[in-house]
Amino acid sequence: MTAVDFAAFVNDLATASGEAILPFFRTSIGADDKSRGGVFDPVTEADKAGEAVMRQMIRRAFPRHGLIGEEFGSDHADAEYTWVLDPIDGTRSFISGLPLWGTLIGLERAGKPVYGMMHQPFTRERFFGDGEWAGWRGPDLKGKGFAERRLSARACASLADATVMATSPALFDGAARAAFERVCAQARLTRFGGDCYAYCMLAAGHVDLVIEAGLQPYDIVALIPIIEGAGGVVTSWNGGSAAKGGAVVAAGDRRMHEAALKLLAG
Amino acid sequence: MTAVDFAAFVNDLATASGEAILPFFRTSIGADDKSRGGVFDPVTEADKAGEAVMRQMIRRAFPRHGLIGEEFGSDHADAEYTWVLDPIDGTRSFISGLPLWGTLIGLERAGKPVYGMMHQPFTRERFFGDGEWAGWRGPDLKGKGFAERRLSARACASLADATVMATSPALFDGAARAAFERVCAQARLTRFGGDCYAYCMLAAGHVDLVIEAGLQPYDIVALIPIIEGAGGVVTSWNGGSAAKGGAVVAAGDRRMHEAALKLLAG
Repeated sequence: MTAVDFAAFVNDLATASGEAILPFFRTSIGADDKSRGGVFDPVTEADKAGEAVMRQMIRRAFPRHGLIGEEFGSDHADAEYTWVLDPIDGTRSFISGLPLWGTLIGLERAGKPVYGMMHQPFTRERFFGDGEWAGWRGPDLKGKGFAERRLSARACASLADATVMATSPALFDGAARAAFERVCAQARLTRFGGDCYAYCMLAAGHVDLVIEAGLQPYDIVALIPIIEGAGGVVTSWNGGSAAKGGAVVAAGDRRMHEAALKLLAG
Repeated sequence: MTAVDFAAFVNDLATASGEAILPFFRTSIGADDKSRGGVFDPVTEADKAGEAVMRQMIRRAFPRHGLIGEEFGSDHADAEYTWVLDPIDGTRSFISGLPLWGTLIGLERAGKPVYGMMHQPFTRERFFGDGEWAGWRGPDLKGKGFAERRLSARACASLADATVMATSPALFDGAARAAFERVCAQARLTRFGGDCYAYCMLAAGHVDLVIEAGLQPYDIVALIPIIEGAGGVVTSWNGGSAAKGGAVVAAGDRRMHEAALKLLAG
């Protein structure tokens, strides 16, 4: 079974998790604070409901596959295929009512991300890719139905022309903050608050550079095949694989990526 | 004619401007840089198309009314009724592909905002109010049609429990930056990147405090009757009318507003 064969199943996971999550959006559900003194990181009931339904579907369809989820931890993570799930990436957007969160569904084979989807059920958008190709499905802007199109990152060679996104300046501490600000000082525009949506806008050709730190694997694995499938590049700040999370930099243009790596290294 | 009588006409303005603007969203239209060296502030073709259609409709329906628009300036601004229009508030979100921009349609009577709407055509949401009442119309999260509900800001007495939003830390210079950071240091959560959407999330009870600086009247006039209609408070940083723009602070809870004014004054 190739990555492409998983596409229909991933669509089913997105539909089911969206139905589990969306009724909680913009309601007053209590949120725990997981981080205890760090950056505020709420867990909502929606997060748990979304992951539970996806885990159940995966266990039923692919009982030997591994599972890594934000809410309920790891199962068989040494299997050939492992699903990497974040039911609500962008919980801070979610609790603020903003439609910039998304459900991340990633599939790794032997540790390499081979398929990914970001689903935003409120805007009814799906961004998906397999590393070679990436696509978008969402509401048709000129009609009442749905449209689908290929995602393609845009060329942008110079930071002076670049739109840069990061989730929050608060995510960067000390040396990382200084490194991030070296990049922003040269960029045309810096926007905060994107979470997974920022990487998808990069894949769609509207944003040129996304810089983050402190990521978990489930924050990024699903996005890698989308970014790469759209012709973009995503690595750690030192140029290695982004699949383990940590400090990550994504660019729509390879030259932009090289320039950012140099600036981040100082 | 009372403010309530204008509601149907404002809906028509929103529909027409949305149809003019939305086809440009996520396309590669060239953007001018109005600010020449300041914070990047693009003007899109969509901005001009959206304002042009609204001005035409207003001139035809209410030829004696005044008009203040972001793109095409003022007409008869000394009339009893004046329309205050910002076709795309959040142009930086717009060019980054993010659905956090909105069309602001405000109506002032003798200099006082009496009706306002924020329309987000991509998410198909309308937030509207007359200072006494505020409402939301958008996609029903549990079905396929549309839903409408009353907007109500939430109680939040303490900054330690508050979600604070601002468009960008770059909008605050010098003393304003220090004042803003005094508030953030006490807040539970600070989010950037909202533009008009942040004030609407405050009116909807998901955000507790919005702090901005450097606003134009057309950035805020339409939002005032929505915020106040939802039970919130919005003033300048020194407690005066917010309708002239400048430095603005909005709160869902009057106690939060008082606490913020004190901290911002230093």
